[in-house]
Amino acid sequence: MKLATLKSGNRDGRLVVVSKDLSRCVAVPDLAATMQGVLDNWEAVSPKLSEIAQKLENDTSFGEKFDESATHSPLPRAYQWADGSAYVNHVELVRRARGAEMPPSFWTDPLMYQGGSDSFLAPHDPIRVADEAYGIDMEGEIAVIVDDVPMGANLEQARAAIRLIMIANDVSLRGLIPGELGKGFGFFHGKPSSAFSPVAVTPEELGDAWDGAKLNLPLLIDYNGAPFGKANAGIDMTFDFGELIAHAAKTRPLCAGSIIGSGTVSNKLDDGPGKSITEGGDGYSCIAEIRMIETINSGKPVTPFMKFGDTVRIEMKDANGASIFGAIDQKVEKYTPTDA
Amino acid sequence: MKLATLKSGNRDGRLVVVSKDLSRCVAVPDLAATMQGVLDNWEAVSPKLSEIAQKLENDTSFGEKFDESATHSPLPRAYQWADGSAYVNHVELVRRARGAEMPPSFWTDPLMYQGGSDSFLAPHDPIRVADEAYGIDMEGEIAVIVDDVPMGANLEQARAAIRLIMIANDVSLRGLIPGELGKGFGFFHGKPSSAFSPVAVTPEELGDAWDGAKLNLPLLIDYNGAPFGKANAGIDMTFDFGELIAHAAKTRPLCAGSIIGSGTVSNKLDDGPGKSITEGGDGYSCIAEIRMIETINSGKPVTPFMKFGDTVRIEMKDANGASIFGAIDQKVEKYTPTDA
Repeated sequence: MKLATLKSGNRDGRLVVVSKDLSRCVAVPDLAATMQGVLDNWEAVSPKLSEIAQKLENDTSFGEKFDESATHSPLPRAYQWADGSAYVNHVELVRRARGAEMPPSFWTDPLMYQGGSDSFLAPHDPIRVADEAYGIDMEGEIAVIVDDVPMGANLEQARAAIRLIMIANDVSLRGLIPGELGKGFGFFHGKPSSAFSPVAVTPEELGDAWDGAKLNLPLLIDYNGAPFGKANAGIDMTFDFGELIAHAAKTRPLCAGSIIGSGTVSNKLDDGPGKSITEGGDGYSCIAEIRMIETINSGKPVTPFMKFGDTVRIEMKDANGASIFGAIDQKVEKYTPTDA
Repeated sequence: MKLATLKSGNRDGRLVVVSKDLSRCVAVPDLAATMQGVLDNWEAVSPKLSEIAQKLENDTSFGEKFDESATHSPLPRAYQWADGSAYVNHVELVRRARGAEMPPSFWTDPLMYQGGSDSFLAPHDPIRVADEAYGIDMEGEIAVIVDDVPMGANLEQARAAIRLIMIANDVSLRGLIPGELGKGFGFFHGKPSSAFSPVAVTPEELGDAWDGAKLNLPLLIDYNGAPFGKANAGIDMTFDFGELIAHAAKTRPLCAGSIIGSGTVSNKLDDGPGKSITEGGDGYSCIAEIRMIETINSGKPVTPFMKFGDTVRIEMKDANGASIFGAIDQKVEKYTPTDA
């Protein structure tokens, strides 16, 4: 089953069931008005939504045209966005680039930060930033939405709580992060609003590509229209979603609708740093990573961060080349505060 | 106007308007079913709620009995909980106790962490923790709920967005924090579910005690039935709520219903560390602070963190000694995960 949220006159948008090929959709106001409404009552509502989804597949005249650009993020606002850093390769490169050792515990104890979840960007919304000097970067990620998870959940409970899967752009302001992390309280300004894919899908929609806790497909990142990354989300993921969810729930329960992220997808190459796509590698899911590799190789970064007018497209395709989640497709724009 | 959320069969509870003396309340399903519903539409709904509040004052036979112990936190779950550390005295003591200098920028650039907001405790709910070794502590704080705040809001916009004021217990697990902060991504396990006061009040309800961005009254902390703290929330607050809100909104907008916290209320005494109430001082709003002062004075902490069975009560009284927000009243209990 594929679900999306269309922009509408209210803050939480309008829930729609979407056809597998993303061509048509149908609103279901009698079953659930919003995505959070479904998640609050998944067991009761989801079987009925599945019936609608089946009808969309059986009857190609059923439903209205689905327009990705009219969507909100599936949850326009959520009660939780907890983002892991499961591709430890990426974390190790960050450290190597600044000449620091990574603590060995990072291979066994997940890194995770509490993100802001009150104001997500729609997948085709611009990324508005006040200043290019903030160091604007994309981070291509996988994210899951969970049902209620009890405090202290074990891995089995954690995996069983995964209800929906999305892809994400965890927008990052690299220029603000070092100072912010130096203060010791984690990210705040360095992580502005994130965006999620137009469509969220249930695990069974992914077939064999979903192993219960990992998604074994390349995450396609196009930067200014050219291929920039195609790292496989199932490779080098040190902590799977079960482990990330259990980590998040160690000292408190997670409310249905909580979103757990994988962190930037990152693949090694021959056990070392990856290569760009133009050099025959799988590229990168964020600009920071190529800059770290440039720093390791030549002493300093060469690739600049994003400028106003730059675009990023993040998508994932199935074995037949069809888009699974629709595309995150965003342009960076200058933001000017108003005094009004 | 005073508002509360009664526990009910659903996740977001049932909104009620509460009389000033906290004796009676009335549900307003025709105006708004939930607290978030009011905040989503404050301008339209709040004048009507004010009329109900006025009726509660004028007619003492109107409404049902208000029972603090039947309340959720005003927002049982919220889209954002961003907690500052505005009483820099507290931060300086933390540093001094471990022999570290506090960066001078901490006096001008607020510390703030993104907290979990999906699963708050009700104000009379137990604090359930798996292990006493986690170092269980209370943190008595002031918190505000804001309306929509645009990205890059100035101080005037930030202050004007304050809709409701509460007191809070930002439960902290001190034993988990040093290791967690050492990982560099901020708090996660060290900050389990927070609790907020039974009642949230509008600024005008506080009269002269509210100066537009600070609350000039003592925050009363009772620990195991004995007075433990009475620090004045208006004193030594280096960053007022306008500054905290503007800080939170620097790189992203804040959605209506976002909660911004002050951090542990902490007062200096004669420009030095405070004294306990039994020694004639104003005491502390968390156990960590007395432990830091013990460490500074005698090389090691003496007061233990909370044990299973310990209780904490957090309240604030007006000039006439009447409770403004009702009391947070919690007992620490052992939590045992279930495999079911």
